[in-house]
Amino acid sequence: MANFDLMKQLATEKGGKIILLLMDGLGGLPMEPGGKTELEAAFTPNMDRLAQEGCLGGSHPITRGVTPGSGPAHLSLFGYDPVAVPVGRGVLSALGAGIPIKAADVAARGNFCTVDAEGLITDRRAGRISNEAAAPLVEKLRTIQIPGVKLEVRLEQEYRFVLMLSGEGLHGGVADTDPQVTGKAPYPATALVPEAEKTAEIVRQWVDAAAIILKDDFPANMVTLRGFGQPPDLPTFQEVYKLKAACVAVYPMYKGVSSLAGMDVLPTGNFTPAQEFQVVADHWHEYDFFFIHIKYTDSRGEDGNFPAKAAVIEQVDNALPILLALNPDVLIITGDHSTPAKLRAHSWHPVPTLLWAPATHMPDACQSFGERETHRGGLGQFPANELMPMAMGHALRLNKYGA
Amino acid sequence: MANFDLMKQLATEKGGKIILLLMDGLGGLPMEPGGKTELEAAFTPNMDRLAQEGCLGGSHPITRGVTPGSGPAHLSLFGYDPVAVPVGRGVLSALGAGIPIKAADVAARGNFCTVDAEGLITDRRAGRISNEAAAPLVEKLRTIQIPGVKLEVRLEQEYRFVLMLSGEGLHGGVADTDPQVTGKAPYPATALVPEAEKTAEIVRQWVDAAAIILKDDFPANMVTLRGFGQPPDLPTFQEVYKLKAACVAVYPMYKGVSSLAGMDVLPTGNFTPAQEFQVVADHWHEYDFFFIHIKYTDSRGEDGNFPAKAAVIEQVDNALPILLALNPDVLIITGDHSTPAKLRAHSWHPVPTLLWAPATHMPDACQSFGERETHRGGLGQFPANELMPMAMGHALRLNKYGA
Repeated sequence: MANFDLMKQLATEKGGKIILLLMDGLGGLPMEPGGKTELEAAFTPNMDRLAQEGCLGGSHPITRGVTPGSGPAHLSLFGYDPVAVPVGRGVLSALGAGIPIKAADVAARGNFCTVDAEGLITDRRAGRISNEAAAPLVEKLRTIQIPGVKLEVRLEQEYRFVLMLSGEGLHGGVADTDPQVTGKAPYPATALVPEAEKTAEIVRQWVDAAAIILKDDFPANMVTLRGFGQPPDLPTFQEVYKLKAACVAVYPMYKGVSSLAGMDVLPTGNFTPAQEFQVVADHWHEYDFFFIHIKYTDSRGEDGNFPAKAAVIEQVDNALPILLALNPDVLIITGDHSTPAKLRAHSWHPVPTLLWAPATHMPDACQSFGERETHRGGLGQFPANELMPMAMGHALRLNKYGA
Repeated sequence: MANFDLMKQLATEKGGKIILLLMDGLGGLPMEPGGKTELEAAFTPNMDRLAQEGCLGGSHPITRGVTPGSGPAHLSLFGYDPVAVPVGRGVLSALGAGIPIKAADVAARGNFCTVDAEGLITDRRAGRISNEAAAPLVEKLRTIQIPGVKLEVRLEQEYRFVLMLSGEGLHGGVADTDPQVTGKAPYPATALVPEAEKTAEIVRQWVDAAAIILKDDFPANMVTLRGFGQPPDLPTFQEVYKLKAACVAVYPMYKGVSSLAGMDVLPTGNFTPAQEFQVVADHWHEYDFFFIHIKYTDSRGEDGNFPAKAAVIEQVDNALPILLALNPDVLIITGDHSTPAKLRAHSWHPVPTLLWAPATHMPDACQSFGERETHRGGLGQFPANELMPMAMGHALRLNKYGA
């Protein structure tokens, strides 16, 4: 975490205001040879103007060739070393669901799933049941009690929930019960290290009880658990960057990772980009740094729906004047990783990045915001965890290093 | 070796097939201001088409500005940390010559050279004597015996041979005897660390004996030794990348480094590029990964022969349809380092790299394969040991990192 040490040493109390606008899974690919990417195909007059005035580049969330999950990708963008700081999905989900999680607690991400008469999984997401259908099932799970441990179950979204264990002698080293494929039964929870034996036994008892409670709730008649873990002790944005930082996000997961980094999570609902931007406007004078997370670029990419992903980008572009009217000193528009509709999955391709900081940026020859334009961009290609130092520099928030 | 740990963790058993086609010393320079490089001057319609469809970039084998030898350059390209894993030239040559070398053995690369009556070197390569002329001299050297050590001498190619020592208490920390210039006498072997004193003494005795045996064999009337070392315990391609990997090379040295990385070395003779490609075709269904080494780009660069180097590149381009007919999922065309004819030596300039992976690559604006085009390429500039992770990503051979 060499960058962190430098930032801690150099960051000043004052300086410009920074907006980090993230479209999840922004990077894309052409669907056919010679075609445009989602970002290139989208009509984005506002971003194109910012690209002309500012500069572009491409970031690598982990290392070249490696596809990140959402947790590591966000940590990297926030400046952390995503390999040195592994954070379990369960911890991120717990934070996102608003459960206050302490260092000794263990959290796991749960899925409702469908099993057949033999107990083999036929749908890993229980038909993607709605929040409304899942809520009473979560209430049933909350009735399970195991001696010696305090249990908390909270709905995350649709078929996803969080299980949190609090008590003495717990350990996060428990293997996933989710076999990640259909046609298999969920694995019994097993300890990855001897210290986690007690925790694994509690989890086995809890899953057995859950199977009985849910047996008539087809399609959500079973659960899987994964991403067991305990919260890492991350240095916060305040400690590292001396930034009073806020997060505006719709999905719990992204609120969670922001909270872990010490950001205040501002209240939202199932908001449009324009509504999220309005939250920033409403709190503009309270913070130095705003992280805005737009989810649906990634969702439409994972659906393989190229035009729908482009449409989300256009929706964001259309709402941009709300942010521009605030006159941010630094506005960064990027993604956490690529999710090309062509691949229907996260990918390793460099993430398009736009840095606009009218008082300090070095413009380049780029004329529009798109993958191919980034190849001649002034930012070059860089590790994603060098983006925050760049934002800090352009906001005039770093002292000179050395005399 | 963080990348290695990541690769070990993320690599899958299945995925696309990868060809890494290496033209040794590919990178070049214009002979005069405004001129073309060797690669730019060569007529390469096949590579140009691949450059239009795929993407380009430039790699740094060690770090910017540092010229690599062949050993470290290849290790870096294979994904190893070339500074953390030093491998002596002698070990590579021994492996390449097919001598089974064990952990306790010490190997050195030898040159026949020419010395004058005062013992000063007048030709470091003994007039580049032929294999036929060198073979009986190697037989003479094999007659030398030193008490307490088992000696092996093997012809490598032309004026180059391998000396290998086996026995108790040997150590590879012996300085080169090759002064690297003419007009000096070979240095006596000296220990770089106290543990190598015994080995240095054996080598001094052996060189004294060799000088006597060869004294009438002008121009090959003396020897120099360099690159003393013991074999490192490298993780193999199978262990790191889960790749069943094969090497197709003509020169022993490159077979050696591939063997060290756990590749099967496929049988070849003094083959043309087309003949080497045919070996790949003949074994296409047996391997996931093929490393093809083309030697003569480097040789002609070292000769300072610009048109001859360009001609080798054209010869490779002309044979490319043999590889393309195999429909590789990932085809990378690059060098291990630059060898500009203008400099008549290896150099530190970024190595032109072409990555073509039709199902997964992000195209860029490049129109032909050449140094200047790489400057606007989608791969940017990158450490050479991130090339294998990129190949793995584009072959869909890596799991996602984190949730």
